[in-house]
Amino acid sequence: MNTHKRQMALRRARDTVAHAMAVARGSGAHTVSSAAPQGLAHPACVPGPGRSCEHPLVDRDLNAALHRYEQTIRGRFEAIEEVLRALSARQHDQDFAHQAQSMSEQRLGFRWPDEALDNAWVSGVDMARLYAHGTFRAIGRCIERVDADQAPWRTRLPVQPDVLRSCGYHTVDISPCADGRLQGLLPFILRTAANEGVLLKAYAGALFDIENDVSDWSQRQLERIVAGHDPRLDYLKVAVYHFSSSSACDQGCAAHGSQDHVAIAEAIARLQGLHHAVAEQFGPDMAPDLMLMGLDTDLDAIRIHLPDALGRIHADRFLDSASLYRETVGMESRRALDHIRQAIAGHVNDLGGLGTRGNEQGMQALAGAWLVANLSQIEYVIEHHAGRYAVIGHDEHFICAGDLLEQLQLRNQFYYAHLDTVEEGAADLDVGVRIFTGLNTRRGLPLPVLVHFAYASAVPGSRERAVQRGRRVAAAVQARYPDLHARGLLQCEVAVSDRRGREPLSFVGLGGQDTRSH
Amino acid sequence: MNTHKRQMALRRARDTVAHAMAVARGSGAHTVSSAAPQGLAHPACVPGPGRSCEHPLVDRDLNAALHRYEQTIRGRFEAIEEVLRALSARQHDQDFAHQAQSMSEQRLGFRWPDEALDNAWVSGVDMARLYAHGTFRAIGRCIERVDADQAPWRTRLPVQPDVLRSCGYHTVDISPCADGRLQGLLPFILRTAANEGVLLKAYAGALFDIENDVSDWSQRQLERIVAGHDPRLDYLKVAVYHFSSSSACDQGCAAHGSQDHVAIAEAIARLQGLHHAVAEQFGPDMAPDLMLMGLDTDLDAIRIHLPDALGRIHADRFLDSASLYRETVGMESRRALDHIRQAIAGHVNDLGGLGTRGNEQGMQALAGAWLVANLSQIEYVIEHHAGRYAVIGHDEHFICAGDLLEQLQLRNQFYYAHLDTVEEGAADLDVGVRIFTGLNTRRGLPLPVLVHFAYASAVPGSRERAVQRGRRVAAAVQARYPDLHARGLLQCEVAVSDRRGREPLSFVGLGGQDTRSH
Repeated sequence: MNTHKRQMALRRARDTVAHAMAVARGSGAHTVSSAAPQGLAHPACVPGPGRSCEHPLVDRDLNAALHRYEQTIRGRFEAIEEVLRALSARQHDQDFAHQAQSMSEQRLGFRWPDEALDNAWVSGVDMARLYAHGTFRAIGRCIERVDADQAPWRTRLPVQPDVLRSCGYHTVDISPCADGRLQGLLPFILRTAANEGVLLKAYAGALFDIENDVSDWSQRQLERIVAGHDPRLDYLKVAVYHFSSSSACDQGCAAHGSQDHVAIAEAIARLQGLHHAVAEQFGPDMAPDLMLMGLDTDLDAIRIHLPDALGRIHADRFLDSASLYRETVGMESRRALDHIRQAIAGHVNDLGGLGTRGNEQGMQALAGAWLVANLSQIEYVIEHHAGRYAVIGHDEHFICAGDLLEQLQLRNQFYYAHLDTVEEGAADLDVGVRIFTGLNTRRGLPLPVLVHFAYASAVPGSRERAVQRGRRVAAAVQARYPDLHARGLLQCEVAVSDRRGREPLSFVGLGGQDTRSH
Repeated sequence: MNTHKRQMALRRARDTVAHAMAVARGSGAHTVSSAAPQGLAHPACVPGPGRSCEHPLVDRDLNAALHRYEQTIRGRFEAIEEVLRALSARQHDQDFAHQAQSMSEQRLGFRWPDEALDNAWVSGVDMARLYAHGTFRAIGRCIERVDADQAPWRTRLPVQPDVLRSCGYHTVDISPCADGRLQGLLPFILRTAANEGVLLKAYAGALFDIENDVSDWSQRQLERIVAGHDPRLDYLKVAVYHFSSSSACDQGCAAHGSQDHVAIAEAIARLQGLHHAVAEQFGPDMAPDLMLMGLDTDLDAIRIHLPDALGRIHADRFLDSASLYRETVGMESRRALDHIRQAIAGHVNDLGGLGTRGNEQGMQALAGAWLVANLSQIEYVIEHHAGRYAVIGHDEHFICAGDLLEQLQLRNQFYYAHLDTVEEGAADLDVGVRIFTGLNTRRGLPLPVLVHFAYASAVPGSRERAVQRGRRVAAAVQARYPDLHARGLLQCEVAVSDRRGREPLSFVGLGGQDTRSH
């Protein structure tokens, strides 16, 4: 990235920050602004005279394709608010309904429900309803267009299923925090293709459910044994905590009160808990491999904590992608790769070896693959977000509860809580709703909640049960936040999808007719 | 059983019925009395001059031991109401607290909480609270004394783990209806020892949770593969519906509106659903064997529906233990056994063979073992309950929600709903609460709800998670029935136990200090 481009990016970022701060002042908010502090040096690279931030191992074409994708997706959601602002000024015009539909069709690609417009002349338009409707339509559009949207980069991601297998893992089960800033983890931060070998279940504070994980683990193991797959392949569990390098006390993990040491200690305890649970039930040789990962949400740089020879994970011992970027940015690509491999080998040596089940080489290789892949993301943030995100805090547009929407993974686009019931997932939802109370509802916008469950189309009744579960969860969400619900500030939708993709995503409503419409 | 003994039993039963009807009239209840109709012939045996009901295959010593056990357990619960009635008359006496404690210690073996008695002279005793307290103490006592109570019959039960294994099953996973009349299923009706190879999870209408079952199934299969156990052993899923032969329209399954054909059809659909779900995920050769069972709750006689050669289970094709009893009561034991074996073989032949995975002999043998074992229970009801239970309807003392209390399984002692959350188990709880609204709360007595979860003591944090889950479920139960809760008519307690028996049962309270007291 040359100096001119970087200066342009910095200027764009400064404008965004200034706008964000003006919005914060205008809204009378007392919270600390989530705009990034000015003048903080980037820990990985500061370009200057004679020095550019162009790392030899970065895939610039991939970055460009991902950036076009990011703009496309964000554009779909941002257009909703723009259109609604324009409509707001005309809601008492005689031909308002006609104007609204034609503007929406042109700008957003869909029509509003007629009955939501017809009575605008009496009591004004229900903007909260339209906003939520538009958000759900935008989600639907992202799913419909996923092939076209993602074709330019999906197969170009460096960590494909064969890489995971060559590292000795048939399944990588990742639990990041539910925080929106982690929701680009797979395609952006780890450059890892979504596929059958990757499970992603987010929980507030990365505090995943051990019993649920034991169930997932045993089903995957059994499937493989039954199918006669390579018995040397293993299961890796990864927990991902996060922190903000520029605003540690305010913009860390909300579930842990932005106390990084608590977030790390609890993630380690949860990983060890899973290990113990499997070892106790199935024998000590069966427990999955473990890895802890940290994410600096300002920069998208990662830390990887590998288990030492005794299987212990240490809060203060990790490999850091920002350091590796800095150390290798000026090198030729082969030397840079060697340097990174040596750094990993040295770290493993310091740990006295790795506590894996005979797969030390594979775990090392996977750590290396993710660290190298992440260098591209560090430079992505340098190039397209001035090195540090303009909005380092929350900026989510909706909450997704239930199963992951695999086809839509993007930073700060949504808050995602993996759950089967609100009763068990209440803590995860509460954190999400608290965050939104400081975002949308402060601006008078509603909080759209998409409840999504996947089903197996080959199993009779599976879709019906997913629909029932979704509606039950949506009702429980409304019951948990009665005040927001009564004021129209909580707008739920239920959607289901087939695990094998035969039905990509259908909105099924809250309990009326199952329309199977998108 | 000779004619004299039977006449005595009949007289006792008539007295009980008369009492129950008087109670029903006195309470002004408009529901149909649940006392058994008079004069209805027993379908298995009517003793008369020269004809006794003494089947050659019945274990009379076992019946006697089980009857003593039933009386002991029921006595512990019935004494509570008797003591409270006595206390009620004295609650304004000067030395009431002293009298109450000494009567309770003498009759019930425990003391009431002091603060529950001290203010009796002001506003009267909170009888609902004492009743619930006494019920939970009686449960605790049954668990404490389980070894002494059950020693006379536990090892004498004919269906021990080796029988299940010899029939080709490492696990028998049984889902009866949550109805209290089915809660003696294992030790009484099927004469089957509770053990690691038997899972029992009850649901209203026997509508078990397919996803939960797939998880249980896969964990059991994997445990066995990992441990290198006999790969020829298989997993059997049994659903148990029920009906009332004397009062089909009123005393059938409440969850299905006493419509037997619906109860049967839905149980069959659920079994097939499980089969499909496993076959789809793990391959068609892996799906568990299936069996449907019906229980006549008037007589404790069973029907066994075996799958035909194509794996279909038919609502109207079954083996019936009452018929087998009648056909063989006069025979010598070897001939009776031969007759039953031939009846089963003939039935299997009519079905064109059995749809099992190469275990036709084993499934036939298990059906035979249960049918023969059930003959003893038929005679138990003839001898000790005049052939048909005096109270054919509901008479539960409490609800148990969560995991089964393995050590306490007795007809109509409690309503048991297997659940992890109230959100998913709401339908099961609603049926139970509706039943109790017609029992205890109509008499002004509260509904005690024991929330119980089992944990694995070897796994760090497992007990703590069970306690948290229990308290979360108890809070959700209170929130679901706010009116009963506010009126003190719903009294919850939370208990946990170690799966391996290191901590048999501890009451841990609703959220205060964890006392580990019994």
